Amino acid sequence: MTNTVQTAVVGVTGYAGAELARLLLRHPRLKSAPPVFAGRVDAKDEARGGIPLAEIHPQLADSHGSGSLKMQPFSWELLSNLGVEVLFLATPHEQSREWVPEALARGLRVIDLSGAWRLTEAANRAVYGFDDEDSELAAATQAQAVYGLPELHRKDIAGARLVANPGCYATSVILALRPLVAAGLVDLDCGIVADSKSGVSGAGKAPTAKTHFMYAADNLSAYGVFTHRHTGELLEQVGIAASQIVFAPHLLPIPRGILSTIYVHFRAGQTASSIAHVYREFFAGSPMVRLYDKALPQIQYSVRTNYADIGFQLAADGRRAVIVSCLDNLLKGASSQAVQNLNVMQGWGEAEGLE
Amino acid sequence: MTNTVQTAVVGVTGYAGAELARLLLRHPRLKSAPPVFAGRVDAKDEARGGIPLAEIHPQLADSHGSGSLKMQPFSWELLSNLGVEVLFLATPHEQSREWVPEALARGLRVIDLSGAWRLTEAANRAVYGFDDEDSELAAATQAQAVYGLPELHRKDIAGARLVANPGCYATSVILALRPLVAAGLVDLDCGIVADSKSGVSGAGKAPTAKTHFMYAADNLSAYGVFTHRHTGELLEQVGIAASQIVFAPHLLPIPRGILSTIYVHFRAGQTASSIAHVYREFFAGSPMVRLYDKALPQIQYSVRTNYADIGFQLAADGRRAVIVSCLDNLLKGASSQAVQNLNVMQGWGEAEGLE
Amino acid sequence: MTNTVQTAVVGVTGYAGAELARLLLRHPRLKSAPPVFAGRVDAKDEARGGIPLAEIHPQLADSHGSGSLKMQPFSWELLSNLGVEVLFLATPHEQSREWVPEALARGLRVIDLSGAWRLTEAANRAVYGFDDEDSELAAATQAQAVYGLPELHRKDIAGARLVANPGCYATSVILALRPLVAAGLVDLDCGIVADSKSGVSGAGKAPTAKTHFMYAADNLSAYGVFTHRHTGELLEQVGIAASQIVFAPHLLPIPRGILSTIYVHFRAGQTASSIAHVYREFFAGSPMVRLYDKALPQIQYSVRTNYADIGFQLAADGRRAVIVSCLDNLLKGASSQAVQNLNVMQGWGEAEGLE
Amino acid sequence: MTNTVQTAVVGVTGYAGAELARLLLRHPRLKSAPPVFAGRVDAKDEARGGIPLAEIHPQLADSHGSGSLKMQPFSWELLSNLGVEVLFLATPHEQSREWVPEALARGLRVIDLSGAWRLTEAANRAVYGFDDEDSELAAATQAQAVYGLPELHRKDIAGARLVANPGCYATSVILALRPLVAAGLVDLDCGIVADSKSGVSGAGKAPTAKTHFMYAADNLSAYGVFTHRHTGELLEQVGIAASQIVFAPHLLPIPRGILSTIYVHFRAGQTASSIAHVYREFFAGSPMVRLYDKALPQIQYSVRTNYADIGFQLAADGRRAVIVSCLDNLLKGASSQAVQNLNVMQGWGEAEGLE
Repeated sequence: MTNTVQTAVVGVTGYAGAELARLLLRHPRLKSAPPVFAGRVDAKDEARGGIPLAEIHPQLADSHGSGSLKMQPFSWELLSNLGVEVLFLATPHEQSREWVPEALARGLRVIDLSGAWRLTEAANRAVYGFDDEDSELAAATQAQAVYGLPELHRKDIAGARLVANPGCYATSVILALRPLVAAGLVDLDCGIVADSKSGVSGAGKAPTAKTHFMYAADNLSAYGVFTHRHTGELLEQVGIAASQIVFAPHLLPIPRGILSTIYVHFRAGQTASSIAHVYREFFAGSPMVRLYDKALPQIQYSVRTNYADIGFQLAADGRRAVIVSCLDNLLKGASSQAVQNLNVMQGWGEAEGLE
Repeated sequence: MTNTVQTAVVGVTGYAGAELARLLLRHPRLKSAPPVFAGRVDAKDEARGGIPLAEIHPQLADSHGSGSLKMQPFSWELLSNLGVEVLFLATPHEQSREWVPEALARGLRVIDLSGAWRLTEAANRAVYGFDDEDSELAAATQAQAVYGLPELHRKDIAGARLVANPGCYATSVILALRPLVAAGLVDLDCGIVADSKSGVSGAGKAPTAKTHFMYAADNLSAYGVFTHRHTGELLEQVGIAASQIVFAPHLLPIPRGILSTIYVHFRAGQTASSIAHVYREFFAGSPMVRLYDKALPQIQYSVRTNYADIGFQLAADGRRAVIVSCLDNLLKGASSQAVQNLNVMQGWGEAEGLE
Repeated sequence: MTNTVQTAVVGVTGYAGAELARLLLRHPRLKSAPPVFAGRVDAKDEARGGIPLAEIHPQLADSHGSGSLKMQPFSWELLSNLGVEVLFLATPHEQSREWVPEALARGLRVIDLSGAWRLTEAANRAVYGFDDEDSELAAATQAQAVYGLPELHRKDIAGARLVANPGCYATSVILALRPLVAAGLVDLDCGIVADSKSGVSGAGKAPTAKTHFMYAADNLSAYGVFTHRHTGELLEQVGIAASQIVFAPHLLPIPRGILSTIYVHFRAGQTASSIAHVYREFFAGSPMVRLYDKALPQIQYSVRTNYADIGFQLAADGRRAVIVSCLDNLLKGASSQAVQNLNVMQGWGEAEGLE
Repeated sequence: MTNTVQTAVVGVTGYAGAELARLLLRHPRLKSAPPVFAGRVDAKDEARGGIPLAEIHPQLADSHGSGSLKMQPFSWELLSNLGVEVLFLATPHEQSREWVPEALARGLRVIDLSGAWRLTEAANRAVYGFDDEDSELAAATQAQAVYGLPELHRKDIAGARLVANPGCYATSVILALRPLVAAGLVDLDCGIVADSKSGVSGAGKAPTAKTHFMYAADNLSAYGVFTHRHTGELLEQVGIAASQIVFAPHLLPIPRGILSTIYVHFRAGQTASSIAHVYREFFAGSPMVRLYDKALPQIQYSVRTNYADIGFQLAADGRRAVIVSCLDNLLKGASSQAVQNLNVMQGWGEAEGLE
């Protein structure tokens, strides 16, 4: 366990990148070695050493308007010269797919926030349409990837060179379901329903018809029913087949936050305390999960925190339950999960810089 | 079929009441006989003949600020003197429970927007805790009540003296499910899930902790899971048992609109066109239902319309479907449904004044 | 006065266009002659006779999904063949600038919702950067244009061949200020402040960084301070110099609605009733303006109505007032104002189809 | 300068109280002496030692659900027994008016977030209707009070026993205006306009007609024009007369954030750099003010930060300017300002725990 590590972030201009920057800049272990920010920079900005972070995200500025924090022109040499050891990629999955093998070859450890390396099964990866599916390099890279959900894979993450940081929807559903499925309680024949709702930041920063205020505000819409990209992650991590779950995402008229309402049948009658016990056992030692025992979680209590919140309601017959799982899609659904993974990789306290 | 009818509205101060007033005031059949508005009025307002509607709902004012439309002090004599034949009650269910027998005794026909008379089964009514469950008058009144969903009960409504206008959530779920269940397609053993989301107006005008802007805005919360009052309506009208559905309402951070996402298993494989056919047949002759065949409905397209919108997505295996049902909780979920019922009761075109 | 008229709308795909379509389709004078919708249509849609309006704006669909209402491929011949007499242009100002002379030459009367022909002074037009400023045709066209604010120019509009429909901000500020300035009450030396706030639909349908939900939601920002395009309209129509007013628009996190807060000094002390009297006199015979005498207008009461709402608060010293002016930017700020202009041009009741 | 201090908070259940708790709990100087939370607690909660903070504000919970942080039953003895030296009151002004003399008599230093002790002039206090205006104790207490805006009164705050933490609107307007007025630049004869807009949390946690989601959402309304309580603070702290400013607050449909748009005339022509210079000089050494020199501040960049953001736009004539001032009403407008005052009182870095 070392006391600090030199990190770099590519992709700081997006929403998750901004949150990642904020978290890393206040991380107690990184005070002496603030992260390097790098990305595409035009000639004019290159001449002034990059784009000040405070111009990209004014909310991150301090009152001194100090120009010391800049997004510098990316190059592998830059990372090497600055002694970067851990690289965060908050980049589109195509770019992560291309860059990760290079980064690994250069000896970097990588935490990739995209969907590029999350999926073990080629069938599940099909939705991304990667053009390197036949390549040996891709296969070898995938073989090194660890799915970066510490609550499930803490030990593997500790030794990983490539951590595939989970999708936001996937995190909210897997954390709710995996404990119950792993305990053998769920009647999979009857099918699980995961009805998820996400704020607009999940759709990214590019202005599109669907991220227009006039489309999203005062609205709710379902999309990607049966086809959403995160479905593969659910199946692989929960350990179920496609026929055993219906996953339906919805676009909420709020900036951030995910609430997943999950419906399960049990193979045998349960009590509230038997279910609560399963969750408590599973998440013992998991500081970033909060279990709700009196009320159901709500987006307002999870948003802008680094936690995943889980609660449930049991039917009177003890055979059916509704589980509610909430998190902030930009934090536990992306950037704070990445920091949690960094903590695990470094052997630091899993919640350091996150409470 | 008469050309017009004298109506009265009690409960115009609420959200549904305001919409009902707006709809009745522009109804082509009621030009010559605008509705009477009546309610509780203090002495000072009584002295000026009631409270101008434009003071209660400034958006309803015209530029003349005419004082002719007023909420007058309620009395049965007032209704009688003004020749009222049809009474709309947009009142709390306790009040409707008390007033309806009296109104019927006085020869009025009633369209009650509350939950007071919607439920046939005493077990389902238990949630309301009516204190007249043992009374013969209540039983006799209930026996006259017709559930006011024209798409299911058009003929009975035509001759009804008491129409129990459906709940907003119930309308959105029943319209989506009844055609499939009636056709015998749905595998009820595996259970149906109805995950419903409603805007805040559904919670009424009383300021409470949950209707505070700071609670509702930027939030989403589940509530009344397994226990919501509208569950009984679903069961009775869809024709299923409590063990065959889970109904989970959620509070959306928007003023109005309901979207219900409904998950069903089919007893045998279906195609998109077989399902579409069932819906088309069922809703032939139902002008207030719009079937979506290309995309799924969204709240933005249904809100501030008088329609219920229904669409669906079928799994590749043909055995599972996700149905999306949208409407405006204050319109097709309340006031425009009441006007639709009036049209049916009067033998007018079902969509008159609603398109 | 004729009983009906054949209209056409170009630009129905935008927000104001959708509202214009809705208003014209329910206008009592146009039942027998619904408007022609025309625009750019690709080959595939041309083959099916255009794009059904219900596909462009699902909220406008009826339950029959009738394909009769389509946006047809635009051509001058189409308009001519269909006997169009009045053309609504809800198009970008560059397109209106180019098309209006052609339309007039073809004998059409035009109601143009863009800023192309609103400004008399070349200096005020500079902000648009028209490239035909030296052209005689442009000058001749401009000479025919009447500023389409019926409350100020009712008589000229009645005989106009080209009506330049006002800007939304401009309408809200002019209606509040012109009565007081025309009455000689305002001390112009001390300067007027017009602090205006508009919903996001005012920024148009194109997805941009500023119309992204994540930018607009939970935010408020000032923009175009001292430089907004509508400033010229204010100056010309209120009858003041640029040095006598500061106009500062702000982007509100709501879909629609404008509230302008306007600050004036009076040359002599006033009373609430003296000010109210000036407004009442000025707007006598103006059915689309509502004067508030008890409370100040709010966006919630004006939005989705066709009215401009005006109220004020006087300082105890009688020398300063705050005037609040509200309207729906898509209605009285655009489409219902256009219909009002049509009514005036046709000699119909000014509020027909608008109450 | 001591290394830590024992604090207590009364009023943690409100919005500002929750933020104050959050800030104090993570303040580096208070790690060893977390604040005491005290308030009204019923018998049942008293029996369990108070109400866990995580029940009052679930977002503040950590995953251990630790019960150590509780709101204890308030008593002066409790504070005394726990060695409290600095008392934060986030209580209604009536309560602060009553409690502060007692607290001072008991040797506590007080930071009061209410309006009870902010105003020097009795005329300005009239709006609060205090019933102790004739009391010597009140006069003596008021005489000790220092207006807690460190950017203006840093030195006095350092030695104060009673700090009257400023109002949120007042902070946003004073910081924007005081530098220009103090420099003698502003032409006061022509009057200043302060058009302020605030999110709903400014209206407090009590559910009222105006804080109902249906009233506030999708709306904007002006209120308290010429009469708002914060007006007195503006006058006293900016150093102007009531006739020299119009202050008009508006209720924004967002949870938090204030944007004030302020309009001034200058006595002589200015340049952007002359104005910027005045602000820079004034705020040199003020770490919690950010000056914007390229764009105007926006609520999205200030909200959930502890900063006040100030920018301006100058008219081409150099004689008029629009100043935009933004802050988070719960932070720099309340709780983080209180922490800033604590830092100054303790001789700590003014921004400690706030960056």
